[in-house]
Amino acid sequence: MRKLTIVKVGGEILDDAEKLTVFLHDFSKIEGSKILVHGGGKVATQLANKLGVNTEMIEGRRITNEETLPIAVMVYAGLINKKVVAQLQTNGCDALGLCGADGRLIKTVKRSTALLDYGFVGDCTDESINVSRLQQLLDLGFCPVFSAITVDDQGQLLNTNADTIASCLSIALSGIYNVSLMYCFEHSGVLKDVQDAQSLIPIVDDMLIETLKETGVITKGMLPKIENAMKAAHLGVTEVWIRSYESLNKLNCGTRIQ
Amino acid sequence: MRKLTIVKVGGEILDDAEKLTVFLHDFSKIEGSKILVHGGGKVATQLANKLGVNTEMIEGRRITNEETLPIAVMVYAGLINKKVVAQLQTNGCDALGLCGADGRLIKTVKRSTALLDYGFVGDCTDESINVSRLQQLLDLGFCPVFSAITVDDQGQLLNTNADTIASCLSIALSGIYNVSLMYCFEHSGVLKDVQDAQSLIPIVDDMLIETLKETGVITKGMLPKIENAMKAAHLGVTEVWIRSYESLNKLNCGTRIQ
Repeated sequence: MRKLTIVKVGGEILDDAEKLTVFLHDFSKIEGSKILVHGGGKVATQLANKLGVNTEMIEGRRITNEETLPIAVMVYAGLINKKVVAQLQTNGCDALGLCGADGRLIKTVKRSTALLDYGFVGDCTDESINVSRLQQLLDLGFCPVFSAITVDDQGQLLNTNADTIASCLSIALSGIYNVSLMYCFEHSGVLKDVQDAQSLIPIVDDMLIETLKETGVITKGMLPKIENAMKAAHLGVTEVWIRSYESLNKLNCGTRIQ
Repeated sequence: MRKLTIVKVGGEILDDAEKLTVFLHDFSKIEGSKILVHGGGKVATQLANKLGVNTEMIEGRRITNEETLPIAVMVYAGLINKKVVAQLQTNGCDALGLCGADGRLIKTVKRSTALLDYGFVGDCTDESINVSRLQQLLDLGFCPVFSAITVDDQGQLLNTNADTIASCLSIALSGIYNVSLMYCFEHSGVLKDVQDAQSLIPIVDDMLIETLKETGVITKGMLPKIENAMKAAHLGVTEVWIRSYESLNKLNCGTRIQ
């Protein structure tokens, strides 16, 4: 099987022009088929504040209502996505900026309101990814760059967790590619002590993750990322890493999830 | 040669949910390869006003500065583009929402500041359209949906006139397709008297256009549209129409430009 690299980059890199340039430079150098999934950053919150729209967060997830959905779509699928694409193109990477609605590439289901109403938030299912269409774009040599906006069966745009999208894409495409999944952020990987860059945990597996949860090493913000990474590692993705945006192409850097 | 239909839809349709639904329903029914180019509508201006950003217009063209460019990108390439794509998908049209930066499909040149500085505004050239890449996407059965955001050689996003993009696409693709170009808006076509829907001019050619300009029938807002349509008709596009969004698929409706 051919190799496919799927990289997710988080908001804190997107908010910093210098870090973003370093990251996109390295991303462009990845050989073979590749996909980028990007998060949101602070711009959506800043825009909401300027417009006098309150953003409500519950357990690290944004509540997306009728006022905040258009802001998310504008900022993620518009501003950030096109900025990233334009920069990748100057690096010689043939990026194609997409959201899940485009080509129905990522279809999600609006989250149940049974426990809590997250609003216009989409959850991935086993059928979310349009594998054949994505493969056609990859075969043409395009590099799909996804914002975390998806769509449901009724054509409703939905805000979706970017870590989850990266995991779902990896799992769905691992049937036809050897997929390497990398979560890139500002730390060197999963740290025992977030204040100590030297406290990197090189490998995380099921047993260790339970201990890390119990001892509070894995904090709330990190938990969904690790759970998404773990799911990918368990469901056929060849290798899964959490590493620094500065170490994207370095071998054996960061935390390997297995 | 195969048939390709390129449709440009203007802002006033995009601003009206009912009109947009009618238009997108009919657009989805067009058989064979098709491309949609959409304008902006009032949302960008409204957002700029809410953010306290002044929008300056000269001769019907928006001056795009460092404050208004991100607004244009957000609204055109994000909000409007993805809304249109999601709705087309529910109609069974496999839309792919793009801007010119994606796949470097539409590369423009920043407008010269010699006479007047329009800011971040792009002008099309004879080499603007990436014909081979576009053909690949069309061959896969995708319907590209373009916002009027383009990119220059340095990766700078540029605001571009949507009428011009539709004309440029049509001319570039007429080498390999029989292209029908349709400019859709709220009137039934070019009118002798804009207040009188019955005053439709069925055919416009070079001679007539000069008379219409001299007698003031063609007003400032209409002039760039007609000039773009005329250029396409002169440079190999099979048929060029200016017609109502309600008459998209009706034969011999509106004003034919030749």
